[in-house]
Amino acid sequence: MNSDSLTLSEQKELIKSNEISAADLAAACYRQIERLNPTLNAFITVIPQGTEEVANNHHAPLLQGIPVAVKDLYNTKGIRTTGGTKFFADYVPSEDAFVVEKIKNAGAKIIGKTNTHEIALGVTNNNPHFGACLNPWDTTRIPGGSSGGSAVAVATGMALAAIGTDTGGSIRIPAALCGVVGLKPTYGRISLRGVLPLSWNLDHAGPITKRVEDAALMLQVMGGYDSEDPASFKTLPGDFSSHMRDSIRDRKVAFAVGSFVEEVTSPDILHAVRKAADVLAEQGAIIEEVNMDFLREGALANSLMTQADGAAFHRERLQEHPDWFGADVRQRLETGAGFTSSEYALARRTQVEVRRRCDLLFEEYDVLILPSTPIAAPVLKGENAVERARLLTRLTAPFNLTGLPAISIPCGFTSEGLPIGLQIVSRAWNESGVLRIGYSYQEATDWHKMKPSILVTQ
Amino acid sequence: MNSDSLTLSEQKELIKSNEISAADLAAACYRQIERLNPTLNAFITVIPQGTEEVANNHHAPLLQGIPVAVKDLYNTKGIRTTGGTKFFADYVPSEDAFVVEKIKNAGAKIIGKTNTHEIALGVTNNNPHFGACLNPWDTTRIPGGSSGGSAVAVATGMALAAIGTDTGGSIRIPAALCGVVGLKPTYGRISLRGVLPLSWNLDHAGPITKRVEDAALMLQVMGGYDSEDPASFKTLPGDFSSHMRDSIRDRKVAFAVGSFVEEVTSPDILHAVRKAADVLAEQGAIIEEVNMDFLREGALANSLMTQADGAAFHRERLQEHPDWFGADVRQRLETGAGFTSSEYALARRTQVEVRRRCDLLFEEYDVLILPSTPIAAPVLKGENAVERARLLTRLTAPFNLTGLPAISIPCGFTSEGLPIGLQIVSRAWNESGVLRIGYSYQEATDWHKMKPSILVTQ
Repeated sequence: MNSDSLTLSEQKELIKSNEISAADLAAACYRQIERLNPTLNAFITVIPQGTEEVANNHHAPLLQGIPVAVKDLYNTKGIRTTGGTKFFADYVPSEDAFVVEKIKNAGAKIIGKTNTHEIALGVTNNNPHFGACLNPWDTTRIPGGSSGGSAVAVATGMALAAIGTDTGGSIRIPAALCGVVGLKPTYGRISLRGVLPLSWNLDHAGPITKRVEDAALMLQVMGGYDSEDPASFKTLPGDFSSHMRDSIRDRKVAFAVGSFVEEVTSPDILHAVRKAADVLAEQGAIIEEVNMDFLREGALANSLMTQADGAAFHRERLQEHPDWFGADVRQRLETGAGFTSSEYALARRTQVEVRRRCDLLFEEYDVLILPSTPIAAPVLKGENAVERARLLTRLTAPFNLTGLPAISIPCGFTSEGLPIGLQIVSRAWNESGVLRIGYSYQEATDWHKMKPSILVTQ
Repeated sequence: MNSDSLTLSEQKELIKSNEISAADLAAACYRQIERLNPTLNAFITVIPQGTEEVANNHHAPLLQGIPVAVKDLYNTKGIRTTGGTKFFADYVPSEDAFVVEKIKNAGAKIIGKTNTHEIALGVTNNNPHFGACLNPWDTTRIPGGSSGGSAVAVATGMALAAIGTDTGGSIRIPAALCGVVGLKPTYGRISLRGVLPLSWNLDHAGPITKRVEDAALMLQVMGGYDSEDPASFKTLPGDFSSHMRDSIRDRKVAFAVGSFVEEVTSPDILHAVRKAADVLAEQGAIIEEVNMDFLREGALANSLMTQADGAAFHRERLQEHPDWFGADVRQRLETGAGFTSSEYALARRTQVEVRRRCDLLFEEYDVLILPSTPIAAPVLKGENAVERARLLTRLTAPFNLTGLPAISIPCGFTSEGLPIGLQIVSRAWNESGVLRIGYSYQEATDWHKMKPSILVTQ
């Protein structure tokens, strides 16, 4: 059995019908880890085979026996949780993060802790403490981040699903760059208790999977109110799968145009997203171009707020051991600490205004589509590597600022053979609408079935 | 006819049945203005009698013919709107604030623009540009602010109702100090379009009236979604009056105790609020003591955020003409501008945490009661006058930070004969619950019928 071609939903059915055992499935994932992790460095900590903890819960077997990889920002009881930083290199939590507990209670096996950009503040995943994580489509390139390890693990069958966090795109960017699915739900949908904060106002937990239907399943498990998380929102438990297969006929889709989206986006990516709109139109959706240049301010405000909030949260570490941070992260934190309260207050005002503009948009449209990233995976080293990477958050960050649900799904390849992500966004709490459009597109295309080069060549 | 003994609801009925005319009612208010405004300085601008504009609307006569005073922070078309500051001393808006338009459409007469602490950033209403507003119970004392002119106008029958704004207590404090009713609704309930901002995150519009039922009526007119105000929340239109007279039997009332409330509150006030709880208990409410010391952090965060947001909004004025601001306001703005983004970010986190603590409280209790202010109206001048005034926002500010609805109603007098305010707070959007407890208390007591000394002695 090759775990690299398995999807969560399919395997769940096979386990249920006893056609495969959970142990076999885990073994297949461990084989992939053994083969590929030395090259890709997707895990900071692999939980030794056979010791992975599974809660006994026969009532909620939504993820029974499914090997799940957990970003090393989530606390895991008894298992080192580094946050990708030297400061927590030896930190062993005494409790699971709320969501980790939920996943375990749903029967999943936590298979390891994935590599992350240090404290999640960056998107290259070039971690100075635990090594760079590499892209399985081209190992000279970054996988994106900060949840890069989680995306790589899923793309290569080291796990059938993973969880990440997203403050400016940290789930959707690596999903796009690694050719998998990454979902950032509505702000407040998933508890962040027990997750190392970067920005209390912009952090989101979410799943990374191979398929849209797997993301729906993970969200089903992960979502829900937590009275101990101040940002957790009291919503009814969502049902994310039951309407996922409905027709998208007459759904109104806003297609983002304007200089903000177009000026730095590569022609390959613009073309792929345009073709994706055609596919949705063939399925009966109504596509209309909408200028989204008002997102520009939103991207800037998200960046300022992330750095300022990060500097506030890490203030003691930054003061006592600034040199322990990697150079890029330290510089961002120092920039953050240097902003005035007025700059912060104005960014916050922008947050409210951009959210209002989006709310008005989604009174008219079911979803908005745009590229997940303006460029495909940049090289890890070489000229302009840092500057190129800086472009990556541009199109995702506005939806952290606004807290709106957004998914990235595979929608093609560049001429260099690198995956392209299609981003689908909707109004608050409408993850179902996002998943429905995403699923419909996925079922009409084959992009999600392509395998990373490292699986083909090795 | 003496307008000082008239309530909005009663007069509305009399006008409806043609027992009095709207013109007579306005004339009575103008007589009070003529008599008392030279002493009390409640108005910055009085709209000349006979020219007050009334919209023709026979479909929504909720306030038909009612003279209403408007804080000089609300834009009024064609009528000077100073914000209590030199910067806008000659500003004549070309449009009404959204809420002013609503009030006019409901048939009200706008009778004048009321005195305010400069740019609403302070609670003494000792305005260096337009003169100090004085307390009608003792003209050596402040009326509270920043909506002091609105409270004084209502307390003395210069208007039958008024509108104010509240960023740290600016409606509830002058209502308490002047012996009238002041309601700060849930954040987002009333549009702030066309109102001079102090803090985009903490500003609330609301009514000041003589009676609880009048506040309900004003809220009915003022509330409602405004797609042009980013902070406006899309709620169903509330019905604030129909259950106001219901029994409060078995309603659960949290009675705030602990050092935060008690350590600086005068014995007279603590006693009055304790007696108020007894009255509610006699009506069948269930009173339980709850320690509310977690509000302490909330008051501090509200103060920091107000000053920082104010400094952000007024940054150009502060830079170009710092000396145009009154000394106290300038100092607060400069303090605000000096905060770092980290301080702001931490205050914002406190905001979310205090809101969560309140949300949990209101899962158990219908309302919370506590004093509106820890002291009664301080003297305008003399030793420690500024320091005393600083105490005034302590018990109101946490509910700006949390955005929860709160009302101040008369509940007694100090040994010096100064009015005391009872504050009633509830969960988000439960203005009805606040009004119901307030109305029930009001009907069992006579405090709201007492007249300010200036009416008795003149």
